[in-house]
Amino acid sequence: MANTDNPFLGYSGRIDTKDGVYSQSEVGLANRNSGNLLETLALDITPTGLHYLLIHFDVPLIDAGAHRLGFSGAFDAPFELGLDEIKALPQVTLPVTLECAGNGRSGISPRAHSMPWLYEAVGTSEWTGTPLRPLIERARPRADVVDIAFFGADYGFDKGVGHCFGRSLTLEQIADLDVMLVHSMNGQPLLPQHGAPLRLIVPGWYGMASVKWLGRIEALTQPFDGFQQVQTYRFRDSDTDPGRPVTTMRVKSLMVPPGVPDWGTRKRYLEPGPVTLVGRAWSGGGVPVTRVEVELDGVWREARLEQQTGRHAWTKWSCDWLASPGDHVLRCRATDANGAVQPLDPPWDVAGFANNAAQKVHVFVAEG
Amino acid sequence: MANTDNPFLGYSGRIDTKDGVYSQSEVGLANRNSGNLLETLALDITPTGLHYLLIHFDVPLIDAGAHRLGFSGAFDAPFELGLDEIKALPQVTLPVTLECAGNGRSGISPRAHSMPWLYEAVGTSEWTGTPLRPLIERARPRADVVDIAFFGADYGFDKGVGHCFGRSLTLEQIADLDVMLVHSMNGQPLLPQHGAPLRLIVPGWYGMASVKWLGRIEALTQPFDGFQQVQTYRFRDSDTDPGRPVTTMRVKSLMVPPGVPDWGTRKRYLEPGPVTLVGRAWSGGGVPVTRVEVELDGVWREARLEQQTGRHAWTKWSCDWLASPGDHVLRCRATDANGAVQPLDPPWDVAGFANNAAQKVHVFVAEG
Repeated sequence: MANTDNPFLGYSGRIDTKDGVYSQSEVGLANRNSGNLLETLALDITPTGLHYLLIHFDVPLIDAGAHRLGFSGAFDAPFELGLDEIKALPQVTLPVTLECAGNGRSGISPRAHSMPWLYEAVGTSEWTGTPLRPLIERARPRADVVDIAFFGADYGFDKGVGHCFGRSLTLEQIADLDVMLVHSMNGQPLLPQHGAPLRLIVPGWYGMASVKWLGRIEALTQPFDGFQQVQTYRFRDSDTDPGRPVTTMRVKSLMVPPGVPDWGTRKRYLEPGPVTLVGRAWSGGGVPVTRVEVELDGVWREARLEQQTGRHAWTKWSCDWLASPGDHVLRCRATDANGAVQPLDPPWDVAGFANNAAQKVHVFVAEG
Repeated sequence: MANTDNPFLGYSGRIDTKDGVYSQSEVGLANRNSGNLLETLALDITPTGLHYLLIHFDVPLIDAGAHRLGFSGAFDAPFELGLDEIKALPQVTLPVTLECAGNGRSGISPRAHSMPWLYEAVGTSEWTGTPLRPLIERARPRADVVDIAFFGADYGFDKGVGHCFGRSLTLEQIADLDVMLVHSMNGQPLLPQHGAPLRLIVPGWYGMASVKWLGRIEALTQPFDGFQQVQTYRFRDSDTDPGRPVTTMRVKSLMVPPGVPDWGTRKRYLEPGPVTLVGRAWSGGGVPVTRVEVELDGVWREARLEQQTGRHAWTKWSCDWLASPGDHVLRCRATDANGAVQPLDPPWDVAGFANNAAQKVHVFVAEG
């Protein structure tokens, strides 16, 4: 498909968020790309249908029976597999927390034109499939292979460039991570919107690495230069900065907003008295969370941490609060085993990636 | 919970949509309340997890084993049922198309502050449960009963009023409609966000009637005056108009946007040549769709209609188009057996309810 004769040169405008307004096309993206509901952070596993979705183009509706995964390019022993053959390989089930790299974009000013996430683009599912590494070894990458690229069936335009969604990992990254080819989610076949019939799961990385509707794995002897690898998902200080790749998730925590909401504003209403705040915390690259603090009435307090349910799954935390009448702003922040701590203010990035600033929850506590 | 001592008086502002901007709280609602993906209109049944969600407050997480449905108020033979008892009653499975009353709100100017739906708040699922009418008869409503009210477990504030979500129907409405108490959706137990463990389904009505997290059915000898019955879900010409209740769905149609999208704008790109456009059409109250027309290059053409899969399920339509290079705006409009036709321009309503104006899809067709 020709790229030069079309008007899809994209929208690269910056949006001044001082006035807090959003464009029609941002709301169009928000209507399509759905977030978690923060109250379900009380659960270890995000309910099916509430795991966040970030869908670049249209969901391809693929015939699972006819679907083939091809290993091609600079492999000495290229092959193809059907879904039944993948299910006959050794199977593993892992709980994995995935977060969208754009989560928190709405908190960064000026804001890049893209999906206007607040806090909700994170979820934990149980993924079932087969480890990728033995399949790569079976295909025998040539000695000069530098990248393994993964291509989905979803096709569209971004900034005027027509392409299938594609991402790459190095052989070292594949060996270090528990990368999986998965066909099931929470004990059920993958739903169309989550990549049916086959997707990649790259635990510990932001979600863009976990390519959906996976059809082709290609060994490359040059660094992968696909749009989604080199044109986006990069940290950039300015529009002219070539940038650094977005990879593993930054340490982050969220709380279940306490009390009950107002419909239109989502502000919280609470009776005075003791409250147990609960939430989840996670980091990337398999690094555990070691500490969560909650700011209550201006004082940072230690939260209790529960045991992680898996190396790549979020950690539940809780913290007691004696809610007193008036307006309150609650915050939480996590620290990981590398010593990384969530910042209180959003880290600057041109495209609004990886905003892991501490969540703020506005609460009104009534008179007793 | 006292209502008078809190700041939850809501946001009743009108938004001038000439400049196409949305507020932070509207985007907050759009991040929570997710729509269908229009490409899945190709399927008879909306994939699980893509059925639209409009959640007024927080999702209550209910223990299905302990849940009881109570019949109370002006019944001569009130009783309670557990979920197992409901599952032991005669079971029916029906495909039902539900649309949010606020679908299309973003197309109305000035726009009410609420969930800024574009086109996506519609879906069709297969619901399994038991008919409601025999249970109402078993509870024996007194002769002076005028309304049957249905209460969910979800609690919160709207315009300063704290309340559980509640709606009512008359005995005649319950008898006329295939109203069901459902525990399963698409062959699986209800998901938390869809009303688990038990919800009402009122086929043919906008979605607000299908009360989720249903816990109590109350017979009333006075008209139900709950917030969601009398303060909202009413058609009003002005802020001082007492209004008329929103009930059955208006005739409407949507198409799968052809071609492939641009990420940021969702504009469509197509190669020139023959294209088969497909979509769905529906109306309310069990009235079938009799006609769908598609505007192609300024001419309204008849679409082919397929057989409905159920009295309350949408109808698939298709129409052939020879796409020629250039920019196009495609539209579709349906007519139902009552002779109601979709308008080309949005019908005015203060709260932006029931906008059934013909969908517009912007398409760019490349040179061959």
